[in-house]
Amino acid sequence: MTGASSSKAKPTGPIPLGYGAIDGELAIGGKTASQLAEEAGDTPLFVYSRELLKRRVSDLRAAMPDQLAIHYAMKGNPFPPLLEYMNGLVDGFDLASGGEMELALAAGVNAENMSFAGPGKRDRELKAAIEAGVTLNLESEGEFARAVAIGERSGTTPKLAVRVNPSFDLKGSGMKMGGGAKQFGVDAERVPALIKEIIASGADWRGLHIYAGSQALNTGAIIEMQAATLELAARLSDEASTSPDKINLGGGFGIPYFPGEEPFDLDAVGGALGQAFSALPDSIAESEYCIELGRYLVGEAGVYLTRIVDRKVSHGETFLITDGGLHHQLAASGNFGTVIRRNYPIAIANKFDAEAEEVVDIVGCLCTPLDLLSNNVFLPRAEVGDLVAIFCAGAYGASASPMNFLGQGAAKEILV
Amino acid sequence: MTGASSSKAKPTGPIPLGYGAIDGELAIGGKTASQLAEEAGDTPLFVYSRELLKRRVSDLRAAMPDQLAIHYAMKGNPFPPLLEYMNGLVDGFDLASGGEMELALAAGVNAENMSFAGPGKRDRELKAAIEAGVTLNLESEGEFARAVAIGERSGTTPKLAVRVNPSFDLKGSGMKMGGGAKQFGVDAERVPALIKEIIASGADWRGLHIYAGSQALNTGAIIEMQAATLELAARLSDEASTSPDKINLGGGFGIPYFPGEEPFDLDAVGGALGQAFSALPDSIAESEYCIELGRYLVGEAGVYLTRIVDRKVSHGETFLITDGGLHHQLAASGNFGTVIRRNYPIAIANKFDAEAEEVVDIVGCLCTPLDLLSNNVFLPRAEVGDLVAIFCAGAYGASASPMNFLGQGAAKEILV
Repeated sequence: MTGASSSKAKPTGPIPLGYGAIDGELAIGGKTASQLAEEAGDTPLFVYSRELLKRRVSDLRAAMPDQLAIHYAMKGNPFPPLLEYMNGLVDGFDLASGGEMELALAAGVNAENMSFAGPGKRDRELKAAIEAGVTLNLESEGEFARAVAIGERSGTTPKLAVRVNPSFDLKGSGMKMGGGAKQFGVDAERVPALIKEIIASGADWRGLHIYAGSQALNTGAIIEMQAATLELAARLSDEASTSPDKINLGGGFGIPYFPGEEPFDLDAVGGALGQAFSALPDSIAESEYCIELGRYLVGEAGVYLTRIVDRKVSHGETFLITDGGLHHQLAASGNFGTVIRRNYPIAIANKFDAEAEEVVDIVGCLCTPLDLLSNNVFLPRAEVGDLVAIFCAGAYGASASPMNFLGQGAAKEILV
Repeated sequence: MTGASSSKAKPTGPIPLGYGAIDGELAIGGKTASQLAEEAGDTPLFVYSRELLKRRVSDLRAAMPDQLAIHYAMKGNPFPPLLEYMNGLVDGFDLASGGEMELALAAGVNAENMSFAGPGKRDRELKAAIEAGVTLNLESEGEFARAVAIGERSGTTPKLAVRVNPSFDLKGSGMKMGGGAKQFGVDAERVPALIKEIIASGADWRGLHIYAGSQALNTGAIIEMQAATLELAARLSDEASTSPDKINLGGGFGIPYFPGEEPFDLDAVGGALGQAFSALPDSIAESEYCIELGRYLVGEAGVYLTRIVDRKVSHGETFLITDGGLHHQLAASGNFGTVIRRNYPIAIANKFDAEAEEVVDIVGCLCTPLDLLSNNVFLPRAEVGDLVAIFCAGAYGASASPMNFLGQGAAKEILV
């Protein structure tokens, strides 16, 4: 079946580890895709796996130095039951808005374990965070001044850390958040002066947040970034004559989405960080350390299931049209920060074990050519009613897509 | 002020006609931006202008042949008060989902004047549309079979038109919806057979829907497309030995978003269509005609207002950070179907008349480098609290953006 029919096929990304079949169907949490769709009552549907979330965190803890705390950057996936579950697995939550703070509080997360980064915090968000006892990762001198004023009006001492705009970036990362002019954080050379002001203000000085980039798969680049981050933290601490209580080393751990991509070497990263921790300069030797990860913790633990509504042929090409689309899977459609569209890992969920035999385009139900879920993929023959699975849907899916586009509305979400 | 400070400035798109200043501020519907933000109670805010909506439709009617009906493709903007207002201006509504049908019915639109296109209509959407009396633009033979079966079960005769996948596209269009293999419509060569089946089925045969592309600014290309559409409609009608009641000529009328773009020549398009209507082949001489326009009717009538939360300098570049972002303005951020990011028309709304004096980046509040609203724009000096206006926000803004991203939520919307 790899003859003429597959010759025009384009590759798809690798299906993450941990997914198997029951009765020939993709199974998640011991249930088949058909059962999951049935139980949810409708498609499309995001399914998140407790087992895979737990395994990811335990693998991460096993590889990383003991003293490294794991924070969940909840922007990756703010589904309330998932937040509750993650709260039992990780040591802290990183927030990007007041809305996320409310979701985290509702999920039972202790405000003590929350930190809030984001370049455009409004006064009301600062006030709510300060009054709740959330640590603010300050993004500018102006934000510092606002936080101090709000703390005074509230009669609450603000917990203030500084987000640093490092002069290095994370090489090969999907998104650079450092290196050069950025809206994020305070340029490194201005940080010591700001730290001194924070301490002088009487605020609760919490430490440093240094985030250089995200979605990297290059092991060496991650190790190098973490080393540079520690070096920068030490230098800034020395210059400010301080020993920060906490140092957030940022994130950057990527997951494979596309053909040819492979996971980075987690053990190598953990080993290198352990070595670095054993030789810390004095000013940061007593600090508590954390990393903040969103996509890495939850991305591979989620699958998007969408049902085939029509099967049609146009000019010799076969289209499978689903009841889902870019309104839930903007990134998979190639329309979110992507230059060249590539195929996410995908399968016919209820024919997970079947032999591939045809090349098809899988599209969403939206009346726009942008709504392409998979282009020229080689899959088992699928019919109306079959379920398509798009993998790597645990992060930046439901909440990062225009759900109301063309009057569609939200997908179902379940945690199993 | 066009010296060194503006030398690295990148151009912005043209501000649409019809926007002026009151007391130096951008004014919409007789109110200043500051007043509008005050009345709405919060920012960010979409403001849609009744006056500009009305003017657009009346200009269009004046230019187009009298017998051409104007349909609103409500996917452009489904804000309920705007739908109600548009219902008083246009002759019909084009829907892309069952959700849109519900919104249109709630806005008082008569189901008789609705048609429903979309490649992934579910059975429940077909049922609701058939029972309401909405015309279905069939996208495939499979959808025809489902519609007939649902009509029989419902005891309702379905109103069926055929959406044609034309063999031509709209040259220079932002989105090609015809020409080659597509998920939209039925390949032209299979349409006559389908028409005969529809007529034979006893369904209410309504006519043809031929949509070749959208967002074109090339006058000649639009004229050519409409001529090709009429020619195709005639040929298909002849081959099927039918005279369709209605022919939907699609859309395609674009608006200028980016530097150097100019409106197409509406009078020339109307004149050419008038000539074509005066020489129609027999099979389509008695048909009723419409065009369906979304973006063209509403896009320039809307402005997005967002307030500056922080002003900061990083490595010598100035960033204005707003309380809005790509969660409401995905397309303006360059992340929705765009290959090369360019700047939408933009202004400091409460300093609309002021002299430009600095080059800045305007970014949203999201903690992602994707959230860039305008890159290196030359604007009047702006401070925290000032309002930024992004123009061309009337279509594919609020509903086409991931509003829940990073816990942000919806923007306010008002019709003035």
